[in-house]
Amino acid sequence: MRFVENAIGRPVPLEVPGFGAVIPYGGPFCRLGEEVPRVSPPMRGYPARRDKVTHDVEEAIRRSGLESGMTVSFHHHLRNGDAVMCRVLEACERLGIRDLTLAPSSLTDAHEEVSGFVRRGVVRMIHTSGVRGEVGKAISRGELEVPVVIHSHGGRARAIEEGSIRIDVAFLGAPKCDRMGNFTGMLGRSACGSLGYAQQDARYARHVVAVTDDLSEDPLGVVSVPQYLVDQVLVVDSLGDPRKIATGAARITRNPVDLKIARDAFRLILASGLMEDGVSFQVGAGGASLAVARYVREHMSAKGIRGSFGCGGVTGYMAQMLEEGLFRVLYDVQSFDASVTGSMLRNRNHVEIDQSWYANPLNRGCVVNHLDVVVLAALEVDVDFNVNVLTGHDGVLRGASGGHCDTAAGSKLSVVVLPSFRGGVPSIRERVGCVVTPGETVDAIVTERGVCVNPRCVDLAESARRMGLCVKDIRELKEEVERLTGVPREVEEDRSRVVALVEYRDGSVIDTVFRVDC
Amino acid sequence: MRFVENAIGRPVPLEVPGFGAVIPYGGPFCRLGEEVPRVSPPMRGYPARRDKVTHDVEEAIRRSGLESGMTVSFHHHLRNGDAVMCRVLEACERLGIRDLTLAPSSLTDAHEEVSGFVRRGVVRMIHTSGVRGEVGKAISRGELEVPVVIHSHGGRARAIEEGSIRIDVAFLGAPKCDRMGNFTGMLGRSACGSLGYAQQDARYARHVVAVTDDLSEDPLGVVSVPQYLVDQVLVVDSLGDPRKIATGAARITRNPVDLKIARDAFRLILASGLMEDGVSFQVGAGGASLAVARYVREHMSAKGIRGSFGCGGVTGYMAQMLEEGLFRVLYDVQSFDASVTGSMLRNRNHVEIDQSWYANPLNRGCVVNHLDVVVLAALEVDVDFNVNVLTGHDGVLRGASGGHCDTAAGSKLSVVVLPSFRGGVPSIRERVGCVVTPGETVDAIVTERGVCVNPRCVDLAESARRMGLCVKDIRELKEEVERLTGVPREVEEDRSRVVALVEYRDGSVIDTVFRVDC
Repeated sequence: MRFVENAIGRPVPLEVPGFGAVIPYGGPFCRLGEEVPRVSPPMRGYPARRDKVTHDVEEAIRRSGLESGMTVSFHHHLRNGDAVMCRVLEACERLGIRDLTLAPSSLTDAHEEVSGFVRRGVVRMIHTSGVRGEVGKAISRGELEVPVVIHSHGGRARAIEEGSIRIDVAFLGAPKCDRMGNFTGMLGRSACGSLGYAQQDARYARHVVAVTDDLSEDPLGVVSVPQYLVDQVLVVDSLGDPRKIATGAARITRNPVDLKIARDAFRLILASGLMEDGVSFQVGAGGASLAVARYVREHMSAKGIRGSFGCGGVTGYMAQMLEEGLFRVLYDVQSFDASVTGSMLRNRNHVEIDQSWYANPLNRGCVVNHLDVVVLAALEVDVDFNVNVLTGHDGVLRGASGGHCDTAAGSKLSVVVLPSFRGGVPSIRERVGCVVTPGETVDAIVTERGVCVNPRCVDLAESARRMGLCVKDIRELKEEVERLTGVPREVEEDRSRVVALVEYRDGSVIDTVFRVDC
Repeated sequence: MRFVENAIGRPVPLEVPGFGAVIPYGGPFCRLGEEVPRVSPPMRGYPARRDKVTHDVEEAIRRSGLESGMTVSFHHHLRNGDAVMCRVLEACERLGIRDLTLAPSSLTDAHEEVSGFVRRGVVRMIHTSGVRGEVGKAISRGELEVPVVIHSHGGRARAIEEGSIRIDVAFLGAPKCDRMGNFTGMLGRSACGSLGYAQQDARYARHVVAVTDDLSEDPLGVVSVPQYLVDQVLVVDSLGDPRKIATGAARITRNPVDLKIARDAFRLILASGLMEDGVSFQVGAGGASLAVARYVREHMSAKGIRGSFGCGGVTGYMAQMLEEGLFRVLYDVQSFDASVTGSMLRNRNHVEIDQSWYANPLNRGCVVNHLDVVVLAALEVDVDFNVNVLTGHDGVLRGASGGHCDTAAGSKLSVVVLPSFRGGVPSIRERVGCVVTPGETVDAIVTERGVCVNPRCVDLAESARRMGLCVKDIRELKEEVERLTGVPREVEEDRSRVVALVEYRDGSVIDTVFRVDC
């Protein structure tokens, strides 16, 4: 396999079997202005009052026209409780359908069985935002012949619209669905909040099956995906494990290291001067990242600051900030916990947004492109501020691209928070195992041992120092940590075997993941 | 010009300069099952935080790339108060842009000036649902070189999606718009309710300009058209005449003839057996048509009947029925009066729906395809139950196709209400001047002199008689009326000159309108 180096010195294979042209990453904004054709499914009219409802998975698959070699999609809004994907793949296997391309919005802990479908030839190729657990290991070991494509949330919207992911059949978990096919994630016993990713699939798939365990005889007034995008309504006993779908509200960490990091991240945001009326803001659901929201909230309340919008994967904590009037609007593409659902129903300004609205870099202006501040977690970073949220220190796939590179590129200030080491392994590396977010779009890194500001943000470093933050050169901090942990060994990769391509949001390839023993 | 006869014996020109293939109408459901390619505009990314706002119409037009010969679209949600279309066309004229194809959702009384733009060569071709007043006369006289294409609301959605209308630039009146481009019709000083037609244009136009007189510095939470479909935000002093935008709630007629017709239409609906729990229902805003809603409402309240959905162009009267719990949901593609706006804001179950959701016959199931009962007005009908809602008895264009043929085809029961004569001219003709809705999709006609049931609805005629309705053969009724009015003279048409093609909802041509002196 021949490789070239992309703009940040990462290897990109020139040709990948089963792919179109591979575009090496050339910088975060290279493809802006370029006209990219959009691919839409054909129309086909149905007779009036056609009954869309079926109760049999195999029958729904047969009616969908799904065949071996086609592409199926799913959403991951049901979190770790999702049973839809595996039930459908089981039924495909029973029907003798093989070599599928699996294109879910992401894979969660609920999808461990996917490794079995890979082994048995039901799934031949995967496009996803994340991979974890057994599936990550199976892919890292090279069990899939064709490399997995890792996309960001915005990148997936783009890929679907430009046709590099062409969904033949979308099987979309629909917590409440009426007989005409209108469905929502805000109601029903498997309610999960926003269905932003499902909305994207429904608009571009050739055939859409709404999978529900709560069929409404009345037409719905709260609609995430309208009937006219839905071919079939498949009624099943259950969409999955309700305890894992209805996860509790994400709580603020009590870990003192995370809290120290969060507090310093907040002070850095203050130092940036952005924390004023009209500020827009996104944080993740993770430890230090979500904890930043606590400091932001206290500050906004105390100073009477009113923000413009919060966005992203939304936690109950952000919903609470909306209800307290700290934001005008929440733009919600994915609800991280079940407490968000109630807020969406109560608050007209808690808005469900689709994946393109959230982060597609090639539309006329997505939400993340208007962000002031984003706080992001990371597995590791390097001295060029490149961020890895995908592979562990052993080189094994165990993370997700998510909205990481989308928000970093779109925001005015992107702050990455992480402990300086984990389990004796340092988080700041000469070169990260895998780049998901390019350093050019990262403004600062906050650890419990100090803050590193990207050298291109001279003013920010200056204000951070004036704020009393401990600002360190990133190489200096790296060496400081390595004095404690030692310099970790390089991962032994099998460079003859590509197991994943990491796409940047614009569809170019920012990094390549190779086979490792695991 | 060569013609063929379509399936209902109407002349269809085989070739029309400037058109693609002309498909003669072959029956209401001929194109179902056919795969029709869908055309989408390309993507093109913009830099983050780009300022979309401009205050100058000409500047907005220049930035849009609009050139002579291109297609521009507008919506008619601002009712008779709209100034957006004419202001934009004036600016085009100042910029020397000519030969435009004008593709608004419809033309209203606010668009009389369009005849001037036609005469001066700014507009060369028109696609619209309706034409009235001076514009209708100008077209009927043959002032446009190219025939106008008349479409239904559902037909327009289809035409835009299949690319027979390719919108280059959509100028969409946006009563409240934020700086990112999110806009809604539910707020702002020119609030007009639903923006269902604008939603269709925004998704398929190559370039979208939101035209607003109420720019919000805060991001919007109530969003009809999301930011990612909007290229520019053009701020103007006013979207038009607020008195004509904010028309009062449509009132029930006191005309005794209309009330008699309405009451009998209601009794016919009762006779059909459809007036039960779960009934879905649409009425127009016109005299007898809206008056039917009064009887329906009283009956539902008295009997404790709870309907499923109401839909369509929605009046305040229908919104009141929603608030009284007579319907679960209102699906609103267009608000007929300003009182509807408040209901949309108050009631989660008053749902804004786009044009495709409402009536596109070639999607996966539009709302009208699930209607039980629709009550429709008419200008004239013929002995084959064909309905004309487009040309007057003088052959001049003065009406609108609207959702007439869409709802007639989609509903279980379609009832046409009209007085048996108007101004001495009978409404029941041997052959209507122009067919918009084919008789095959019309179940009954109700006049003050009796009810005519389509011969294919044998059971309905029987139940109507049992209900005590005066059921008459349509030819018999025609003759009865003609004994009072005399038989009107045939209109003298210039058959060498086609001035309009009337499209059926599926894109086939159901009738041709010829030049007349006027």
